Amino acid sequence: MNEREARAAWSGLVEPGDPVAGALVAALGPQEALALVERAARDGERAALPAFGDASRERLRRSVDGWARRWVPDAARGQLDWLARLGGRLVVPGEPQWPVPLDDLGPARPMCLWVLGQDPAELLARAVSVVGARAATPYGQHVAGELAAGLTDAGVCVVSGGAFGIDAVAHRAALAAHGRTVAVLAAGLDRPYPAGNARLLAAVAESGAVVSEVPPGHPPSRHRFLLRNRLIAAAGAVTVVVEAAWRSGALSTAGHAVGLLRPVAAVPGPVTSAASAGCHRLLRDGAACVTDAAEVLELLDGTPAAVPDVSLPTDGLGPHERIVHDALPVRGERSVDALTRMCGLGVADVLAALGGLELAGCASQRAGRWRRSRPARPA
Amino acid sequence: MNEREARAAWSGLVEPGDPVAGALVAALGPQEALALVERAARDGERAALPAFGDASRERLRRSVDGWARRWVPDAARGQLDWLARLGGRLVVPGEPQWPVPLDDLGPARPMCLWVLGQDPAELLARAVSVVGARAATPYGQHVAGELAAGLTDAGVCVVSGGAFGIDAVAHRAALAAHGRTVAVLAAGLDRPYPAGNARLLAAVAESGAVVSEVPPGHPPSRHRFLLRNRLIAAAGAVTVVVEAAWRSGALSTAGHAVGLLRPVAAVPGPVTSAASAGCHRLLRDGAACVTDAAEVLELLDGTPAAVPDVSLPTDGLGPHERIVHDALPVRGERSVDALTRMCGLGVADVLAALGGLELAGCASQRAGRWRRSRPARPA
Repeated sequence: MNEREARAAWSGLVEPGDPVAGALVAALGPQEALALVERAARDGERAALPAFGDASRERLRRSVDGWARRWVPDAARGQLDWLARLGGRLVVPGEPQWPVPLDDLGPARPMCLWVLGQDPAELLARAVSVVGARAATPYGQHVAGELAAGLTDAGVCVVSGGAFGIDAVAHRAALAAHGRTVAVLAAGLDRPYPAGNARLLAAVAESGAVVSEVPPGHPPSRHRFLLRNRLIAAAGAVTVVVEAAWRSGALSTAGHAVGLLRPVAAVPGPVTSAASAGCHRLLRDGAACVTDAAEVLELLDGTPAAVPDVSLPTDGLGPHERIVHDALPVRGERSVDALTRMCGLGVADVLAALGGLELAGCASQRAGRWRRSRPARPA
Repeated sequence: MNEREARAAWSGLVEPGDPVAGALVAALGPQEALALVERAARDGERAALPAFGDASRERLRRSVDGWARRWVPDAARGQLDWLARLGGRLVVPGEPQWPVPLDDLGPARPMCLWVLGQDPAELLARAVSVVGARAATPYGQHVAGELAAGLTDAGVCVVSGGAFGIDAVAHRAALAAHGRTVAVLAAGLDRPYPAGNARLLAAVAESGAVVSEVPPGHPPSRHRFLLRNRLIAAAGAVTVVVEAAWRSGALSTAGHAVGLLRPVAAVPGPVTSAASAGCHRLLRDGAACVTDAAEVLELLDGTPAAVPDVSLPTDGLGPHERIVHDALPVRGERSVDALTRMCGLGVADVLAALGGLELAGCASQRAGRWRRSRPARPA
C-alpha cells in the first residue's frame, strides 16, 4: 500500500480533526501508523504500541482501539476507484496539488482531500471564505452576491460550505461572474449535501472544486459539520460572515479563523434583524467591519480601499479661514472692516485668512471688497 | 463687573473654542482679561499687553485686536436680562451647576453656558450623547428612539443637538419615557434652530435643559455648528452615532469624542443604506458596535451586557462526547459495541463519553443499550 492509499484509508478511520491520529501519522508516516491499526484489529490489546510524543500510551491505546474497530481491509481502494471513475482525485500533503494553507491546522490537518474538480492548490492560492446563515434574508443574499461577484472580479476564489442560503448565493455569484469557487463538504463526495444543491455543487466542480476530508460513503453529522468549518476557515486567507443568527455555524467558522490568526470580517446589517445578530456579535468581539468587496480585499492584500472622494474645497480650511468664510457674502461684497467686526478677529488675522481663502479659490475680491467664490473642482 | 458678567461678555466676543481666549482668561481671570480688551478697544495698538504663556505677543495682539472690534460696552447685561426674564440662568465654571465634564476641553472650554431649564451639572452627571443624520431613515429613527428610551429607563440623560432627524427622535423618545434630555445649540437661545423644532426645544427645557455657549442674538454658522459638536462630545460620557452619511456632522462629534478619549459607538445598519455609511466608517476606524441600550450602558458603566441565553445542553460536550452523541439513536437503542464501530472510538472512550453524556442528561441507558435523551432545561 502506498502513501496515498494509506492516507485515504486513514481518512475513513478517524473523525475529522483527531489530533492523536494527526500526531501518530506525522511521527510514523501513514503506512507504518496504519500497520499499527491493522495489527490491533487482528491482535487486539496484545498488539505492541510505540511510545510517541506527548500522547500517553494509554491515550494512544484507546484511540488505536477505536480505529481498529473501524478497520475494513481494502475499504479505501473501492472509494478511490469510485472517485477515479468520476474524474476526481485524492490530494495528499506534500504533493504540488496540496493546498498549503491547510498545513496551518497542525495535527488537526486532514489526512487527505477527496476532490472533484480542479487543482485545489491553485484555487486556494488566493481565496476568501464567505459564509453565513442558511436562513438568509433577501438583504443577506444581495450582499453575499455582491461580495462574491466583487471578489471574483478581483481574481479571488470564493470558498464556502455548499449549504442553502449565504453559502449557495456565494457559490452562484462566483460562477455567474465566470469565477472559481470551492465548496467544502462535511460528508463524502457521493452525498452532496443538501441534496437540493446537487446541481449547484456539480457546477462548482466544473470550474472550481468540491472537496471533502471524509471518504465517499460517509454521512454528515453534527460533529463533522463543526470540524468541516475549520477547513473553510483554513482554506480562505480571510473569512467573511455575511449573515448569522446569534447562534450560527458561521460563528464556529469565524472562531476557527481566529484560532488560525486569519482576519475575520463581518457584514453589518439592521440591528432589528435577527439574521445579523451574530455578525454584530463578531463586530463587538473585534471582527473587521466590511461593507463591500473592496474592503475585504483590503484585509486580504493589506492595501487600503479607495474611499469615496467627497471632499469639499472648504475641508482644509483653518479655524480663522472657516470663520471668515462663514462671514463672506454669496451675493454682494463686504469690506475687510465689516468682516473683522463680524468675525471677532483682528485685521491681521482677517487678511491672512482672506489670503488663504483666495489661494484655495474660496474667496475673491474687487477693489478691496470680498465675496465668497466657488473653486473649480479638479476633474 | 463681576466674574459672571465678564464671562457672559467674553462669550459674545470670541468664537467658540478659541484657545487663545481660553488661555488668556485662565491666566488673568475673566475680568482682568476683559479690561485688556476694553483698553484695546479704546486705545488701539498702543494698549499695553502682558506677556503670557506660550502664545506669542504678536499672536495675542492679533486676537485682542479682533475681540476689541466686537466690544460693545454693556452688551452682556441686556442678554443676561433677557435670560432672567425667561427664567434661564448663566452657568460659569467653578460653580456647583457647572457640568465638570466640559472641563476636559481645556483651553477650548466654553466661557460660560447660557441655560434654559434645569441644573446642567445634575443633568450631565450621567449622560450619553446620541447623534446622527438629519436625513434619517425610518430605520434610524426607530433605533434612535429605542436607544434613547432604553437609556432613559436606565436613568441616563440623553444629550443631542436639537436638529431634525436622529437628534429630534432622541430628544422626543427621552421625553416620552419621562426622562431628561439636554439640547446643545449652536446659536443663541433666542434662536431655536431649526425653527421647526422650537416646540420640541421648549419641551426639552421643561424637564431637561437647552444650552448654548453663545449669547442670545448670535446666529448659527457652519463654524459654530462644528464647534458646538465638541460640547456634545464632552457632555456625554459616551457618544453614540445612530445614522450618518459618509460625510456627516455626527462624524465631527465622534471625532471630538475620540479627542477627549471618550468611548465612541456606532449603530450598524444595512450596507446598502447610504445613511449608515458613516457609522460603518466609524466601526472600521475602531468605534464600538452597539445594537441596543444595554450595550451602550456596558460602555458607560463597564459592566457586560447580559447575553441572550440560547445555550444548548450539548454546548459543553467534548469532541468524543459529541461524536458519540451524534451516533445515539433518538428512537430505539444501540449497544456500546455498535457505537464503537460507528464512532471509530475505542470501548474505553465510548464508555467515558456515555458517562459524560448521561451526567449531562443527553443520554440514557436500559440494560446496557443507549439512546439519546433531552435534558430538562433549567427554568
